[in-house]
Amino acid sequence: MITALGSRLSMPVPDMIALIANWDSLAEEARAATGNDHAVGDVELLAPVQRPGKIFGLGMNYADHVAEAAMPMPEDQIWFTKAVTSVNGPHAPVELPKASALLDYEAELVFIIGKRCRHVSADQAAGVIFGYCAGNDFSVRDWQLKTSQYVLGKSFDTHAPFGPWIVTPDEIDPAALPIRSTVNGEVRQSSNTRHFIFDPAAQIAHLSQAMTLEPGDVIFTGTPGGVGAAMKPPSFLKAGDIVRVEIDGIGAIENRVVNEAG
Amino acid sequence: MITALGSRLSMPVPDMIALIANWDSLAEEARAATGNDHAVGDVELLAPVQRPGKIFGLGMNYADHVAEAAMPMPEDQIWFTKAVTSVNGPHAPVELPKASALLDYEAELVFIIGKRCRHVSADQAAGVIFGYCAGNDFSVRDWQLKTSQYVLGKSFDTHAPFGPWIVTPDEIDPAALPIRSTVNGEVRQSSNTRHFIFDPAAQIAHLSQAMTLEPGDVIFTGTPGGVGAAMKPPSFLKAGDIVRVEIDGIGAIENRVVNEAG
Repeated sequence: MITALGSRLSMPVPDMIALIANWDSLAEEARAATGNDHAVGDVELLAPVQRPGKIFGLGMNYADHVAEAAMPMPEDQIWFTKAVTSVNGPHAPVELPKASALLDYEAELVFIIGKRCRHVSADQAAGVIFGYCAGNDFSVRDWQLKTSQYVLGKSFDTHAPFGPWIVTPDEIDPAALPIRSTVNGEVRQSSNTRHFIFDPAAQIAHLSQAMTLEPGDVIFTGTPGGVGAAMKPPSFLKAGDIVRVEIDGIGAIENRVVNEAG
Repeated sequence: MITALGSRLSMPVPDMIALIANWDSLAEEARAATGNDHAVGDVELLAPVQRPGKIFGLGMNYADHVAEAAMPMPEDQIWFTKAVTSVNGPHAPVELPKASALLDYEAELVFIIGKRCRHVSADQAAGVIFGYCAGNDFSVRDWQLKTSQYVLGKSFDTHAPFGPWIVTPDEIDPAALPIRSTVNGEVRQSSNTRHFIFDPAAQIAHLSQAMTLEPGDVIFTGTPGGVGAAMKPPSFLKAGDIVRVEIDGIGAIENRVVNEAG
């Protein structure tokens, strides 16, 4: 799709990251060139960024999730990463891995970096956000917690679905978005991004003190209360479960849990 | 350099990762095509993989470093990541960041994944390693330790130098490599990879249970005792310091600490 679009633009756009990086100059012609070539129902939507440079996720960013995890309220932003090989499409199967039975969901607002930047103040952070998605920060709880570092439990193949598309900032107020997850239609999480402890601007200000952020970098902004691990008794995902994350004003992603093949 | 080499090969090789991924079929002609076009002293060596998909680092993998960090002996491999934007050349400046005064070195054997793989047993792991480098896992100690997750302190721009080149496995015994670091010529770390708690085969077996490893992925294998943070009193790096990591059979990388600009 991006290849087809790229051929209609005034500069080469080999992939989505190139489009994002050049959005200021291409937005107008890209909007004009994007017709209704295909009905959404006729295509398989892939992750809007197939191979980001980085995927960061923020832990403990809603007070009710902090409470259910029996953690102290964070004074600092607790960042972890998801390996880029965990990227997955908004409607693609998600694997229950051979290595664990403790697969859990985390509904999250995701944002995509639009500009290469470092040392961005919170006041200026809105200018480096390309847009927003719904994401599910699938987590393998035993692997996440068996050492001090979460990353392996956050990085299993297929465990970073996001989409279904990228909504640009002019279309929503990211500080007041209802967010929900359901498992087989049952509501598990229902909150609003207004309950963030650290908002995207604070997140960008913090991350960019340490490192350069680049177009296409993907930020998972934390999950509200209601994860399976905190249910009494805990309830983990099984093959066949349908997990849906929806954010008003953005859309929904829905992933079916399947046993890892082989 | 890779572009010049690529033009002499029988398939397009746009970057080092493409060469690594196709090494089985290209090794012979690549060796024949690589002449002494340039003396090493006449060129600037960059990181051998400029933009890996993943950089993983292993914590607490030498007993003497576990002891100096006052940590329990690990039962599981403690993995963290370094952001890909931290990649740096073997002789390039390393930044003392504005955000911290607690910059430290960690001499490490680094290996580069050669084949796309998942669920690799330790017995078969040697077959997916493309080669070895010397690396310095520069660490910003306050950022590393102010939350439970190390990643931000490991991910500052310029903080993942490795090289000076990639040595293929036929040329060394990675299980018996003397490894040293010096600061301004003073030996700070001196150990041997035979003291690994988890060797590269065990590392690949563990990581590949969770995720697909890909050609060009970079693995920092842990540091021996002697880091600046564990000295009495602690000694952190300052602008002007020359930090060298050398591994017998591979070579040396040497980075000068400079104040972050701006």
